[in-house]
Amino acid sequence: MSRNLRILIEYDGTDFAGWQRQPGQRTIQAEIEAAIAQMTGEAVLVRGAGRTDAGVHAQGQVANFTLDANIPTLGLLRGLNSLLPPDIALLDVAEAPPEFDARFSAHGKLYRYHIWNHLVRSPLNARVSWHCRGAIDLEAIRAAAAALVGQHDFRAFRAADCERRTTIRIIRRLDVSRAGDLIAFEVEATAFLKNMVRILVGTLTDLGRGRITPDVIPAMLTTGDRTIGGVTAPPQGLTLVRVDY
Amino acid sequence: MSRNLRILIEYDGTDFAGWQRQPGQRTIQAEIEAAIAQMTGEAVLVRGAGRTDAGVHAQGQVANFTLDANIPTLGLLRGLNSLLPPDIALLDVAEAPPEFDARFSAHGKLYRYHIWNHLVRSPLNARVSWHCRGAIDLEAIRAAAAALVGQHDFRAFRAADCERRTTIRIIRRLDVSRAGDLIAFEVEATAFLKNMVRILVGTLTDLGRGRITPDVIPAMLTTGDRTIGGVTAPPQGLTLVRVDY
Repeated sequence: MSRNLRILIEYDGTDFAGWQRQPGQRTIQAEIEAAIAQMTGEAVLVRGAGRTDAGVHAQGQVANFTLDANIPTLGLLRGLNSLLPPDIALLDVAEAPPEFDARFSAHGKLYRYHIWNHLVRSPLNARVSWHCRGAIDLEAIRAAAAALVGQHDFRAFRAADCERRTTIRIIRRLDVSRAGDLIAFEVEATAFLKNMVRILVGTLTDLGRGRITPDVIPAMLTTGDRTIGGVTAPPQGLTLVRVDY
Repeated sequence: MSRNLRILIEYDGTDFAGWQRQPGQRTIQAEIEAAIAQMTGEAVLVRGAGRTDAGVHAQGQVANFTLDANIPTLGLLRGLNSLLPPDIALLDVAEAPPEFDARFSAHGKLYRYHIWNHLVRSPLNARVSWHCRGAIDLEAIRAAAAALVGQHDFRAFRAADCERRTTIRIIRRLDVSRAGDLIAFEVEATAFLKNMVRILVGTLTDLGRGRITPDVIPAMLTTGDRTIGGVTAPPQGLTLVRVDY
């Protein structure tokens, strides 16, 4: 009898070419599939909730796969963690109902983005933050971010090669806060387009630095024009925190 | 006219053989001295407040050196940071009085130690924490830690090759707290012996896990016997947070 197994995954994305398996590249999906094959002898397809980009991290990525081997979940958790490289760990392995699909069953996701806002780069934060010098006006960002919350057509906030058919998404929450020299964005949405969080954060940060004006945000939503927005924030500041089901 | 310059340094100690210059090793002192030589042509000796071990990090290491070149401090800050590797940064460069000595002028230091207390290792915390599975009783640790605060002979809490003549030190504060799965020790003292924080944390953690009994702590202080204590906690959990003058 095949089982449908759900896994919760943490990874440091620094040394990966992203989640998705690609020939000749080190990817998270391929490493997990290799560990499962090594432990069970089964060639499985691990389906992730979100295909994170190269350099993006996860505290709570979710995936599922079908397995025949009758190994208890705690044995799988221990065995797979001992086979996985230091930059990937499974936090949990659980039996899931047959219809559970990590990608299509997800109701929403939470991403966090960190900016190191200081004159000097930070060696201890470099792997998990974007270094931005100079003043960033969080009140201006909050005011502009309010226009993004809710249901909108986010086609101006996606990568040129994004293949999703519909670009309508619902942002449930978009918060920005500061703790010392570290600025954190938190974005919760039903689903995301390719590079959506990085374009949102890059555009809002450019606004907070006075490089673009607040009217750009509503203009992006109505015209769908990516070119009037800000930079795409670099991947290493981004972490997939949680997937909701 | 020679100037005495004081620098504030952050580093990720993962890929270093520690602070102190050693032939054929990558060390923080050697990297900073090399950057100064490359920028100014002067072969200086950079004196650090604390000689951190291999793998130990710093958010606020302090050092000083004598320089002839008449380069403004902001120019030194920018120039040296562009020459230093990504895992070292100078947070500040300032003129200091001639008598200032980073090591001997220090009145105290603050170290922080992180434990990742979870069944599974954490890829995102692995470089800066010690992974300990199972229950750790923070109340038992706090009760035992109280006996360590104040002036004591800490000869049971130092590495076998520690060369300091006197082993009397004053611990001003020893706190332990938990935030989710991360436990943090903070230890403030006038000065430290070699491996002192790591032996303190290892012994208190072994006590919190029930591997040694609370009477061991006073016994170590009175007998000076290192062997009855706990493990030496590994270096990657330790960060030199601040040096006080």
